[in-house]
Amino acid sequence: MGMTTNHYYPGLEGVVAAETRLSHVDGQKGILIIAGFPVEELADKATFEEATYLLWHDALPTAGQLQEFQQALAARRALPPATLALLREAAVAQVPVMDALRMAAGTLNLNVPATGGDPAHDQALALLARFPTIAAAYWRLRQGHAPIPPHEKLGTAANFLYMLSGEEPAAAAVRGLETYLNTVIDHSLNASTFTARVIISTRSDLVSAIVGAIGALKGPLHGGAPGPALDMVFEIGSAGRAEAYLRAKLERGERLMGFGHRVYKVRDPRATLLAAAAEKVYTAGGDMTLYNLVRAVEEKAVALLEEYKPGRNLKTNVEFYTALLLYGLGLDTELFSPTFAVGRVAGWIAHCFEQQAANRLIRPSSAYRGVWDRRWVPLGQR
Amino acid sequence: MGMTTNHYYPGLEGVVAAETRLSHVDGQKGILIIAGFPVEELADKATFEEATYLLWHDALPTAGQLQEFQQALAARRALPPATLALLREAAVAQVPVMDALRMAAGTLNLNVPATGGDPAHDQALALLARFPTIAAAYWRLRQGHAPIPPHEKLGTAANFLYMLSGEEPAAAAVRGLETYLNTVIDHSLNASTFTARVIISTRSDLVSAIVGAIGALKGPLHGGAPGPALDMVFEIGSAGRAEAYLRAKLERGERLMGFGHRVYKVRDPRATLLAAAAEKVYTAGGDMTLYNLVRAVEEKAVALLEEYKPGRNLKTNVEFYTALLLYGLGLDTELFSPTFAVGRVAGWIAHCFEQQAANRLIRPSSAYRGVWDRRWVPLGQR
Repeated sequence: MGMTTNHYYPGLEGVVAAETRLSHVDGQKGILIIAGFPVEELADKATFEEATYLLWHDALPTAGQLQEFQQALAARRALPPATLALLREAAVAQVPVMDALRMAAGTLNLNVPATGGDPAHDQALALLARFPTIAAAYWRLRQGHAPIPPHEKLGTAANFLYMLSGEEPAAAAVRGLETYLNTVIDHSLNASTFTARVIISTRSDLVSAIVGAIGALKGPLHGGAPGPALDMVFEIGSAGRAEAYLRAKLERGERLMGFGHRVYKVRDPRATLLAAAAEKVYTAGGDMTLYNLVRAVEEKAVALLEEYKPGRNLKTNVEFYTALLLYGLGLDTELFSPTFAVGRVAGWIAHCFEQQAANRLIRPSSAYRGVWDRRWVPLGQR
Repeated sequence: MGMTTNHYYPGLEGVVAAETRLSHVDGQKGILIIAGFPVEELADKATFEEATYLLWHDALPTAGQLQEFQQALAARRALPPATLALLREAAVAQVPVMDALRMAAGTLNLNVPATGGDPAHDQALALLARFPTIAAAYWRLRQGHAPIPPHEKLGTAANFLYMLSGEEPAAAAVRGLETYLNTVIDHSLNASTFTARVIISTRSDLVSAIVGAIGALKGPLHGGAPGPALDMVFEIGSAGRAEAYLRAKLERGERLMGFGHRVYKVRDPRATLLAAAAEKVYTAGGDMTLYNLVRAVEEKAVALLEEYKPGRNLKTNVEFYTALLLYGLGLDTELFSPTFAVGRVAGWIAHCFEQQAANRLIRPSSAYRGVWDRRWVPLGQR
């Protein structure tokens, strides 16, 4: 039960703002639970649709439920004309993909097919189905290519790769992307998920909540910016150069991107999963050079971090292997964050449903630190 | 200074999430401070531009600063073509004005004139200048009329009325609207302001933060839905019918819209200000019928609330006189919330600036209430 306080909690650190059955992070033990499943038990087995259904309904779907869900998404992947028109304008202005995703998602309540059921569920289906379409269409528009309409027979992950390249992706690539999407599908009350819950707590609509969450995810402090970790690996270039490069960086007091996490004090369980997924994708692709280089860099980096920052336990985080995996799937660095959003939107929506089911307006207080008794001075006397 | 906790605070009630010099609410005493000014000292004297400058810079502008600010806004009021195109689509779909405002605001980073200074300040000017243009243009489009471009010589409040009607508004009307906008310009850490601070705390951009805030403001629990209070007055129709109507409503256990506030336990100081502003607007208009009816309804309602809910101290809140004032300015009920946003966006932006100046990621925790050890079951076995 709650109690009241009047203390200032900077960043609300340690303050519990929600109860949830959706996910749990134990950073000391390196445990991530997704809707009752240890993430290792779920992420590389479920399709993205199964994992989403699990979050939304607290149970894995039966064959019939899964088919119905897949059909509902398939019927909603195409973008409304107004959304596509806006993406064309955004491409002319060359705005970053995350900005385009936020703008386009904001237009989705122009065209939400109604099932006759809960309007929030209708919005949820439209958002989930259209995130990959927006990201892929915008990416192609910005390169000067025509968008590729969604493929009727492919699921969310496969369609995303298809709409980017125009080619039906290999099974190993689809499995790799599904494992990634499931791995990042939810992660307790991060800043974007919290944003979504605050907005929906006013009884606003789901599109508003999700658009707010995208805005929060965009911020560099949110985490989930896997590009720089990979850039470092490319700069290193070969395993033999890793130690000298990393040592020089640490001597200069620089941070190694891809290591350490605000929450996890042991190896991020997601890193293990994504490393295994990446290994399969690169094995299927037939060229293990980059994969082997990354493993060598990781090994050296963890050892050097222990040497330079003993006791800090700086381990590989999710960004490090996200970058390797998504790069192996042919995604450009700038698509990493939007791809993260393609997965996380399922969790955002689940948190909105959970908030709506037992709602209370989220409305903290502020402490006033200004003056109290200013008096009006007319313009001519200032 | 902060401390950590692991208690669950439902709705974060009583938890201090930010320190601010922007505004302070003392609901027990009926005090609202805006950037050091008691609201009564500021709202009916300052132009909206002066009040905004005060929030953003912690001082009233000199004549030169004010002129520069006005010119910067005047140069930014017109909407980018992509934003107007989207509003046309929204009008075809007949979406509510608040949805159109959220969508259109989300597109504003397609076209933010750069001053060469801080990009956040450039976005701030564009947002502040364009909110009234969006609301007015969309309102006209939805009625089947062409939008009216902003008037070069008019300020924010006058331009809003001008862009709605095409007529240069009377001085009393402009003053009435400025008093309203200043009165609602900021109100400590309400849900929309908090949303903006959470989003900007990830180091995201100002457009993202403001779009999130609009989404939160849309929600019925946010407050600031003044329509129903006026609907009740119209239903009552004449002062002689007030007691019977109100008594019947209270006997049925229904809530009286426009009375009582989560924070204020005495008369909301904003209600007093807005009642005085409304009196001037109706006096200038030459017909005091509705104004007098509203005063009579208020008097009867407060007395009956004390009779039916003794000790609860249910006084007139800001919505009651907002409705009267904005109706007197010729605004339709559905424009009340967007007009609220036209004023509050200045406060949202000020809170974003304040958060950026001493930032810390706002990231509370959640408590897990789910199961822990589910095991995978293949589809065929479910």
